Amino acid sequence: MIEDKNQKQTSLDSLGEFGLIDHLTKKFSVKNASTLKGIGDDAAVLNFKNKSVVLTTDLLLEGIHFDLSYMPLKHLGYKAVVVNLSDVYAMNANATQITVSIAVSNRFTLEALEALYDGIYKAAEAYGVDVVGGDTTSSKTGLMISVTALGDVDLESVVKRSGAQSNDLLVVSGDLGGAYLGLQVLEREKQVFKVNPNSQPDLDTYTYIIERQLKPEARKDIVKLLKDLDVLPTSMIDISDGLSSEIIHLCKQSKVGCDLYETKIPLDPQVISTCEEFNMDSTTVALNGGEDYELLMTISQQDFPKIKANPNLTVIGYMTDLSNGMNLVTRGEAKIPLTAQGWNPLGPEPKDH
Amino acid sequence: MIEDKNQKQTSLDSLGEFGLIDHLTKKFSVKNASTLKGIGDDAAVLNFKNKSVVLTTDLLLEGIHFDLSYMPLKHLGYKAVVVNLSDVYAMNANATQITVSIAVSNRFTLEALEALYDGIYKAAEAYGVDVVGGDTTSSKTGLMISVTALGDVDLESVVKRSGAQSNDLLVVSGDLGGAYLGLQVLEREKQVFKVNPNSQPDLDTYTYIIERQLKPEARKDIVKLLKDLDVLPTSMIDISDGLSSEIIHLCKQSKVGCDLYETKIPLDPQVISTCEEFNMDSTTVALNGGEDYELLMTISQQDFPKIKANPNLTVIGYMTDLSNGMNLVTRGEAKIPLTAQGWNPLGPEPKDH
Repeated sequence: MIEDKNQKQTSLDSLGEFGLIDHLTKKFSVKNASTLKGIGDDAAVLNFKNKSVVLTTDLLLEGIHFDLSYMPLKHLGYKAVVVNLSDVYAMNANATQITVSIAVSNRFTLEALEALYDGIYKAAEAYGVDVVGGDTTSSKTGLMISVTALGDVDLESVVKRSGAQSNDLLVVSGDLGGAYLGLQVLEREKQVFKVNPNSQPDLDTYTYIIERQLKPEARKDIVKLLKDLDVLPTSMIDISDGLSSEIIHLCKQSKVGCDLYETKIPLDPQVISTCEEFNMDSTTVALNGGEDYELLMTISQQDFPKIKANPNLTVIGYMTDLSNGMNLVTRGEAKIPLTAQGWNPLGPEPKDH
Repeated sequence: MIEDKNQKQTSLDSLGEFGLIDHLTKKFSVKNASTLKGIGDDAAVLNFKNKSVVLTTDLLLEGIHFDLSYMPLKHLGYKAVVVNLSDVYAMNANATQITVSIAVSNRFTLEALEALYDGIYKAAEAYGVDVVGGDTTSSKTGLMISVTALGDVDLESVVKRSGAQSNDLLVVSGDLGGAYLGLQVLEREKQVFKVNPNSQPDLDTYTYIIERQLKPEARKDIVKLLKDLDVLPTSMIDISDGLSSEIIHLCKQSKVGCDLYETKIPLDPQVISTCEEFNMDSTTVALNGGEDYELLMTISQQDFPKIKANPNLTVIGYMTDLSNGMNLVTRGEAKIPLTAQGWNPLGPEPKDH
């Protein structure tokens, strides 16, 4: 929230579109054999040989999906890539290429876009994907980022949302609720800052949850782990809208029911302590918080021995017949129907802004 | 510009994201064997067998790229698809899939989005492409459309911008300048309408150029024609920014020069008459107008007999050694260096809005 007023500021108007794209992407290199031609023609040219291709796209808008008052542009660039790659990994695929399109108003400087592209570059390097195209244009208000991601996968390894069977185990990677709580902390600090611009926030006790919000990672490692463990999930989805909403997707598309055990939901100690501080229920936060970018999957019971010792994977319930419905089994062993209260991007009052 | 005030108007707030996407895309069907799974999972699943894949993306923003006061939403949806497909055809590829992401403010109703998607549907049907994904979100101001298009092509048939050789013929499809002039007519009518909202515009004499602006077509037919004629261009690009700008791209990327003959530039009679009416130079309009979505290509002289009788293709010049530079040879046989005055989407005052 503290700006260095002495930074060099170059107006975007002084560069043409082509000069800008060249400038921003000049250090991007090609890492995948499937990328035959990247940026610089009417279209990129790719060749996936016999592999199947997965394709996904996401739109991020200032004021709707992010707030630049606490989201540094470099982190935003990183996150914009990660949220798309998460969808690729949720198909059990290997992420290979992205395109990045941005619309910016003239309040952004060249240096601001360089910071954004630095984050995009960092993510592309970290996940081994090639930036093969995009579009850059002006906007009347604010910043908009559209990322499309491609990945390759053997057709028999594709994991859809629709393959869960009754009695399959419901498994989640990592822990839940952190990203949402990180946002609550940042929002609180923003309000404090508005009242007293000289206040210096002490965020040391929130390091993990703030990083979950500002610099989320996609679980490329889980896709590799599943391969190493020789486990092919029967269904999989990434957690962007919240655990509850994603479980409902798996159940509806697989035509099964589910019992989710409240006591099994993995929570980081910082999530638990921050929930206490904010007087929030940690189960509600994990169910509806969203933006965790963990992978939620179902696996056959016969694969349980392969995963049970792994600290990255937690069994949180099991799938049932459709007639059982979708339930949360509470600490008190009551069964409550799951409802999707996840983030509705078209609602009149998005919950996290 | 005349609205039917009795149309049914449904607020977007009353629908969730998932309900909206389902509703808008329910009549979209799969037409390509390469589309294994379209909308409905974390990502689409495609398989191109041994074909190479071309990938391109474009961003269209209200107030920057289109003006809804004269661009009907259905036409806008159609055009958003067409401008992307044009890039696929410019690689000499067959367009196969698109993703469409939109951000809308709450001033748009469900019926407005239905009109937009109706145009997208019409284009997908007309060009035989599958809509396999996208994202829908709210915006604080206006409408934003991001389209990504994929196509397949045999690797040896890919035509890049970089393959032109000295002495190759410079060839263009269709005619030029119409889209830009159509925009001038629509802008003039908008100003008239502002002064007198009851005026009924008589646009009969501008039918062709207005259609070039509001409902452009991508030259899928030219890709087929070239194959039928057994002509593989040495380089190709689509004309989005204007003939001059695109010639410069071909020359720079191919490291050649060019002589373009003013008298050879194909112009529709309506372009000529409207230029006279607006007191504009038709050559300037063709060179710098843009949005024509014709294909500009270079072909080897030995292929000239194959194309010379074809009314869809016009030879407008030839490529030279780099040292010759890039020139317009005028009616008076003077040589003037070509300059790119095409549309700069990052300029402070975009010329056509």
